[in-house]
Amino acid sequence: MIGGGRGAFIGAVHRIVAIMDGKAELVAGCFSADPENSRLTGQDLLLDPSRVYGAYTEMVRAESRQPALRRLDFVVIVTPNHEHFPPAKLFLEAGFNVVCDKPATLNLAEAKKLRDIVRKTKKVFVLTHNYTGNVMVKQARELVQSGRLGKIRKVVVEYPQGWLWQRLETTGHKQASWRADPKKTGAGCCLGDIGTHAENLARYITGLRIESLCADLTTFVSGRVLEDDANILVRYHGGAKGVLHASQISIGEENNLNIRVYGDQAALEWQQEHPNELIVKYPDKPREIWRRGNSYLGATAKKFTRIPFGHPEGYLEAFANVYLEAFRAIEAEIEGKPPPQDLDFPTIEDGVIGMTFIETAVKSGQAGAKWAKFPYA
Amino acid sequence: MIGGGRGAFIGAVHRIVAIMDGKAELVAGCFSADPENSRLTGQDLLLDPSRVYGAYTEMVRAESRQPALRRLDFVVIVTPNHEHFPPAKLFLEAGFNVVCDKPATLNLAEAKKLRDIVRKTKKVFVLTHNYTGNVMVKQARELVQSGRLGKIRKVVVEYPQGWLWQRLETTGHKQASWRADPKKTGAGCCLGDIGTHAENLARYITGLRIESLCADLTTFVSGRVLEDDANILVRYHGGAKGVLHASQISIGEENNLNIRVYGDQAALEWQQEHPNELIVKYPDKPREIWRRGNSYLGATAKKFTRIPFGHPEGYLEAFANVYLEAFRAIEAEIEGKPPPQDLDFPTIEDGVIGMTFIETAVKSGQAGAKWAKFPYA
Amino acid sequence: MIGGGRGAFIGAVHRIVAIMDGKAELVAGCFSADPENSRLTGQDLLLDPSRVYGAYTEMVRAESRQPALRRLDFVVIVTPNHEHFPPAKLFLEAGFNVVCDKPATLNLAEAKKLRDIVRKTKKVFVLTHNYTGNVMVKQARELVQSGRLGKIRKVVVEYPQGWLWQRLETTGHKQASWRADPKKTGAGCCLGDIGTHAENLARYITGLRIESLCADLTTFVSGRVLEDDANILVRYHGGAKGVLHASQISIGEENNLNIRVYGDQAALEWQQEHPNELIVKYPDKPREIWRRGNSYLGATAKKFTRIPFGHPEGYLEAFANVYLEAFRAIEAEIEGKPPPQDLDFPTIEDGVIGMTFIETAVKSGQAGAKWAKFPYA
Amino acid sequence: MIGGGRGAFIGAVHRIVAIMDGKAELVAGCFSADPENSRLTGQDLLLDPSRVYGAYTEMVRAESRQPALRRLDFVVIVTPNHEHFPPAKLFLEAGFNVVCDKPATLNLAEAKKLRDIVRKTKKVFVLTHNYTGNVMVKQARELVQSGRLGKIRKVVVEYPQGWLWQRLETTGHKQASWRADPKKTGAGCCLGDIGTHAENLARYITGLRIESLCADLTTFVSGRVLEDDANILVRYHGGAKGVLHASQISIGEENNLNIRVYGDQAALEWQQEHPNELIVKYPDKPREIWRRGNSYLGATAKKFTRIPFGHPEGYLEAFANVYLEAFRAIEAEIEGKPPPQDLDFPTIEDGVIGMTFIETAVKSGQAGAKWAKFPYA
Repeated sequence: MIGGGRGAFIGAVHRIVAIMDGKAELVAGCFSADPENSRLTGQDLLLDPSRVYGAYTEMVRAESRQPALRRLDFVVIVTPNHEHFPPAKLFLEAGFNVVCDKPATLNLAEAKKLRDIVRKTKKVFVLTHNYTGNVMVKQARELVQSGRLGKIRKVVVEYPQGWLWQRLETTGHKQASWRADPKKTGAGCCLGDIGTHAENLARYITGLRIESLCADLTTFVSGRVLEDDANILVRYHGGAKGVLHASQISIGEENNLNIRVYGDQAALEWQQEHPNELIVKYPDKPREIWRRGNSYLGATAKKFTRIPFGHPEGYLEAFANVYLEAFRAIEAEIEGKPPPQDLDFPTIEDGVIGMTFIETAVKSGQAGAKWAKFPYA
Repeated sequence: MIGGGRGAFIGAVHRIVAIMDGKAELVAGCFSADPENSRLTGQDLLLDPSRVYGAYTEMVRAESRQPALRRLDFVVIVTPNHEHFPPAKLFLEAGFNVVCDKPATLNLAEAKKLRDIVRKTKKVFVLTHNYTGNVMVKQARELVQSGRLGKIRKVVVEYPQGWLWQRLETTGHKQASWRADPKKTGAGCCLGDIGTHAENLARYITGLRIESLCADLTTFVSGRVLEDDANILVRYHGGAKGVLHASQISIGEENNLNIRVYGDQAALEWQQEHPNELIVKYPDKPREIWRRGNSYLGATAKKFTRIPFGHPEGYLEAFANVYLEAFRAIEAEIEGKPPPQDLDFPTIEDGVIGMTFIETAVKSGQAGAKWAKFPYA
Repeated sequence: MIGGGRGAFIGAVHRIVAIMDGKAELVAGCFSADPENSRLTGQDLLLDPSRVYGAYTEMVRAESRQPALRRLDFVVIVTPNHEHFPPAKLFLEAGFNVVCDKPATLNLAEAKKLRDIVRKTKKVFVLTHNYTGNVMVKQARELVQSGRLGKIRKVVVEYPQGWLWQRLETTGHKQASWRADPKKTGAGCCLGDIGTHAENLARYITGLRIESLCADLTTFVSGRVLEDDANILVRYHGGAKGVLHASQISIGEENNLNIRVYGDQAALEWQQEHPNELIVKYPDKPREIWRRGNSYLGATAKKFTRIPFGHPEGYLEAFANVYLEAFRAIEAEIEGKPPPQDLDFPTIEDGVIGMTFIETAVKSGQAGAKWAKFPYA
Repeated sequence: MIGGGRGAFIGAVHRIVAIMDGKAELVAGCFSADPENSRLTGQDLLLDPSRVYGAYTEMVRAESRQPALRRLDFVVIVTPNHEHFPPAKLFLEAGFNVVCDKPATLNLAEAKKLRDIVRKTKKVFVLTHNYTGNVMVKQARELVQSGRLGKIRKVVVEYPQGWLWQRLETTGHKQASWRADPKKTGAGCCLGDIGTHAENLARYITGLRIESLCADLTTFVSGRVLEDDANILVRYHGGAKGVLHASQISIGEENNLNIRVYGDQAALEWQQEHPNELIVKYPDKPREIWRRGNSYLGATAKKFTRIPFGHPEGYLEAFANVYLEAFRAIEAEIEGKPPPQDLDFPTIEDGVIGMTFIETAVKSGQAGAKWAKFPYA
C-alpha cells in the first residue's frame, strides 16, 4: 500500500475491503511521505518493519527484489491525487499490478500517459470508483442493458455533500487540506473528489457518453481557491439530456450520491445512502422497489451479494466488490492467463474519461459556464 | 367562473377549494367556449340557468347589471392560458375582482398590460400559484426570513412529471391538447405548466431574484412542437446559485415538485408529495422533521392549518389557503377598506415575473442554451 | 348539526367535508349544550338564527314542522359519545336520516337499541369511521377480496398517538376533558377514541371477524381514570391472528394509524399519515407501491378519487368520501327508492361490532388481560 | 471455527466480520459434522489441512496440544443450536475462549449449565446477538441511560420475516431444515431464531426486565412442528408495557427487526433495515433524525464507527463490533489481565435470559396464551 498513513480516510477503507473476503493480505507499505508516520502506521498494522518504507521509490526497489513466493501480487495507491501517477508509473513499469484510488491522476495529460503505460506493460490497473460496486447499481445497469427502460431520455445525477461548508482546510484537517489545494488535488476540488464519481456512476449505469456540457462552478467559501459547488447541464451522444450537480457546501447533506434515469418506457432511481433498494417506475404500473438479495434479481447482482435480503450491505461491501473483480484480473495476470471476458471494474479508460470530465467542466466553468465539447481521445 | 367545463381539471379543483371554508358560493359561470358544454356544466352544478353563459362577453354584460345584493364578489378564470388575459381585462375593467389560474397570461406583453389594468382598476387580482399555499412552504419561508439558514448559497428546485411521456395530445385528451398547442399555452409547454410553479416556489421561500439563467430545452416526444423538458442553471442576484429542472417526460413521476435550499448555516427540504413535512438540516445537529400542526411552528403556519397534526392535509387544502387570503383582500375591496398589510397570495407582480421567466428561458433555449439576463420591468 | 360548537374539533371537520363536493348545505344546528355557544357558533357560520337551537329536543320539534322544501335531509351528530344515542334516537324516530360520529354510542346496550331503531325506522344511519373512506384503503380491500393476498394469516394494526402523554384533561382542554371522562366517553378512552378505528379498519380491509381477544390495558398518566394504552392479541374466526395496539401516550406520535395484512400469497401495508400509497409485498417479486390516481387501480379506488396522481389527498377528502356514500343512501331514501346495492359506508352494524370490541377489550383488561370471546348478536 | 461448512449462512458471516478489522485470522476448523464437507470447506478457505477436523472432539484434543505460539486465541461456534453446548463445554473446559452464535443453547437447562462452566473456567464467552453491535443501537441505549426519554412506558419491538412462508424445510434447504426441527433448534423456531434477538435488543436499549408475558404462538404452515409466528404481550418490572411480535411467515418482509421505545419525555425508533438512522420524537419539538458518523453522537457510538457519515454501514459492520469487544476481553484474558470494565458484548447471562424468554413464551403459548411469570435464576 502506498499512502493511507495515520490521519487518512480512504487508506483504512481499502485495508478493510481488500481483506474482506479472505483473498488478500497486507504485507508491505509506504504509508506516508513522512517516514515516521509510515513507520508508525506499519507498526499499527503489525507489519514486518523490514517491509515498511519511508519512500515508495525505495519500496519499489526493495519489493522488486523479493523472491517469487513473497512477491507482491499488487500494490494499492491511496495517496492524494498528485501522488497517483508517479508511483503508479513506477510500480507498473516494475511489473506490479496496481489498484489506484480515483481520480486517476492529477490531470488529463498524466492520465493519458498512464493509459499508455498500462497498455504497454499489460499489467492490471484498477481504478476504485467504488460506487459501481453496489449490487443494486449493477442491477440498474442490467435493467438498462436489458431494454426495460427503453431509450434513455434524461439522467439526473446528484452528489451533494456539506462537509466543506466552512473553511475546514485551514484547521489542520488533513483530508480537507489536500483536497482544497490545487497542487495536490488538481484543477477541480468538488469535481475531482465527487463530481467524477457522479459522472462515472451515470456512465456505468446508462452507457451514455457525454457530447458536451455547461458547468457553472462556484467557490462559496471565502478564501478557498477551487470550486466547492458544480452545477452542470449535460448533453449525451444520441440525444439524451442530463443534469449533474455536486456540492461540498450543501450543508447537512452527508454523502447523498443519487441518480435517476428516465427512459421512454420506464425509469429507475438509486440512492447511495439507501443502497439496498432500487426504485423502478412505470407510466402505468405500480412503482417497484427492487431489493438486494432477492431471487428475482439478475445474475450479476446475485454474484456480488454476500448476505441475505434484509441484512443491509453498505459502503464497504460495495467497495470490496471492486476488489473481487480486481482479484480475478490479478489472478489471471499472475497465472499468465488471458483476462476473464466479463471483468467488471473501472479501468484506466474510465480514468481518462473521468479526467476529461474534470478538465472539460473546469474549462466550461472558467469561460463563464459556456458549453464545451467533451473530447474523447 | 370562466372555464372549467366538463373534461377540465383545474376548474373542478377551484370549485372545491373556493367553497371549502364556507366563505364563497358559485352562482354564475361561463364554463366553456362551447355554449352547450357551458350549459350542461351549469346544470351539473345546479346553477340558475339564467346565470350560465355561452360567452364571457355576454356574462360580463349580464352580471354587471345585477343588483348589488346579487353582484358577483369575484370571478375565477380557469381557462387555457390564451384565454386568461381577455376575460381578466374585461372583468377587471367592469369592476370585478379576479382570481386567475397560472400562468398569468399567454405571454409577457399581455402580463404587463394586465398589470397596468390591475393597477388602474385597483381591483383585486389573485394568481393561483397554489403550492405556496402549503402550510410547510409558509413555514419554510419563515425559517429563511428568520435567518435560521443564514445566507442562501444554493437552491435546487425540481418539478418532474411523466404524464406527457408519449403523445397524449393527439388522443383527444383535453388537458394535454391545449397545453401542447403554442397558440393556447404560450411559448413554453413544460415551462408554462410547471416550470413557472417551480420558479414561483423557489422565489416565495427564498425571496431570491434571478439574475440570469441558462436553459436547455428539449422536445423528446416526436411530433410535439414545444419543449417537454427543461434543465436550467440559475444565478441569483446576491451570488446564490440554482438548479431548476422540470419535465413532463420523466416517466413514472407524478407531481413531484420539490425544493432544497442550502444556506451557510442550515438547509431545508420540502416535497409536494409529502407536504406535511419540512426537513431541516444542520452541519452539526440531528436532522429535523418539522410537521404540520405542531405547537412549535410559526404563527403563519398555524393560521393556515385546518386539522390537527397527523391528519394529513393535501393539495386541496393548500389551494384553499390561497383563496382564504384572496377572500381577505376581496372583502376589504368590497367594503371599501384598504387591503390588509399582511396579504399572502401571488399577485400580478408574480405573474409578470413568471412570464418573464418563461420567455427568458425560451429565449435562452432557442439560442442553444446560452445564458440570458433576467429582465425586471 | 348536533354538536360542533366553538372549541370542538370534529364538528368543523364534518362541516368542511359535508360540503366539499357541493352536495350539501348546513342550514340548522344545535351546536352546544350551552345555548350561548350554540348561538355564537350559528352566527360564526352565518346561519339563519331561527334555525339555531339551544337544545336538540327543541330542534327536532321545530325542524319536524318545517315544510317539505325546507326539511332537513339529514342531521349530523358530532357530540361527545354520551350524547350520540339520545339525539340519534330522537331524530331517527322523527323521520330524519342521521350521520353520526364514532363510536356509535356510550355503550353496547345503547348501540343495540339504536340498531333496533334504525331497523324499525328504515332511516339511513351512517357511522363516520372516516379512515375507510381513504382511496387506498378501498384499494387494499379490493386486493384482499380479489384473492391477491391468498388466505390471510396475520394482521398487525396500530394506532399510536401521543397527545395525552400528560394530563391534558385537567388543563381546560375541551377535547381531552370529555374523552377522559367515563361518563361522557364510555368504558374505554383510548379504545373508544382510536382503538375502535383500528378494529374497524382491519375488518373493513380483511373482512375478518374477531373470535376472541386478550387486552392489556394501562393507564400511564397518574390521576387518569380510563386506559390510555391498549395492547391486544387477536384471534380471528378462520385461524388468522392479529396484533392491535393503540395508545394515547406514545409520545411524539401524531395520528399514526397503520395496518399490515399478511396472506399466504402476498401482503399489504397502509399508513394513514401517507395515505396516497399502498405497499404490496410478495415473496418473490419486487415490492410494489400502488399510488392513488393511477390507471392500474380498481374501479372503487377510481370512483372515490378527486384529483390526479401526485396531488396528495388527505384526511378531509377521505372523510368526504364517507359522505358521498351517505348522500347516495339519503337521496334514495328521500326519493323513496330502495338503497343502492353497493353502498360503502359504516353502518349501525359496524357500530354494534365496534361497541362490542370496546366492551370485550375492557372486560378482558379488567380481568387482568385474560382471553375473552367476542360475542356477536 | 466449529460449523460453517458449505451451505451454511452464519459461518461465512462470522468469517468475514472476525477478520474485518485485521485483528484475527482463521487457522483451524471443524466445519461440519460431515468430515468431507469439513475438509472441502477448509480447502475453500486455504487452511492448513492438518488443522481441519472431521469432529470437534478431535479438534479440541489436537488444538490443545499446539505450542503456545500456534495456540488458538478463541473458537467460534456457528453450528445449529443443539450443537452449541457440547463444543462450548469442551472448549471452555479445555481452556479456550469461546464466541458462540445465538441462542446460547438448545434449552434453558443447558444454558444454566454453560453459565456455571463459564463462571468456573473464567474463560471469555461471547454470545453474538449481533444487532446490539449497531452504532445507532448503542446511541439509542445511551439516550435512554442519559434520561432523555424519561421513564419508559412502552416498548414495541417487531421482528417480521417472510422466508418460511411455505414449507421450505422439506426442500433440502439446509438453514430452514434445522431451524424447523425441534431436536436441533429447541422448543421454539421463530422464537429461537429471531424472537430472542428482539428480546435482546429491547433489553439492551432499555435495560428493562420482563416480569411476565402472554404469548400467542401459531404454526401457520401445514406440516411444520414448531411455531412460525409469535405475538407476545409483555409486562416489565417497574410498570412499562411491551408488545413483541416476531414472524417467519410475514410474507414479503425480509429482516425487518425494529423497535420503538416511548418514555414520558421522548421516544425513539430504530429499524435494522435502515441502521444508520435513529429517530427521536418529542411531544413539542421537531422530530429528529440522528445519523451515524456525526459529531453530535456520544462517545460509544463514535468508538464503533468505521467510516464517515453518509457512507452506510450495514449488518456486517455491526456484527464486527461484537467481535471488537470480544477481542478486548480475549486479549485481556490471554495476557492474564482483568477484563476491561466497560466491555460491551452479550454474555452467557444474556444467553440464560434469552433461553428463559424462549421457554417462558413456549410455556405461555402451549397453555393457550396464558400469562406466565418470567423467572430469573
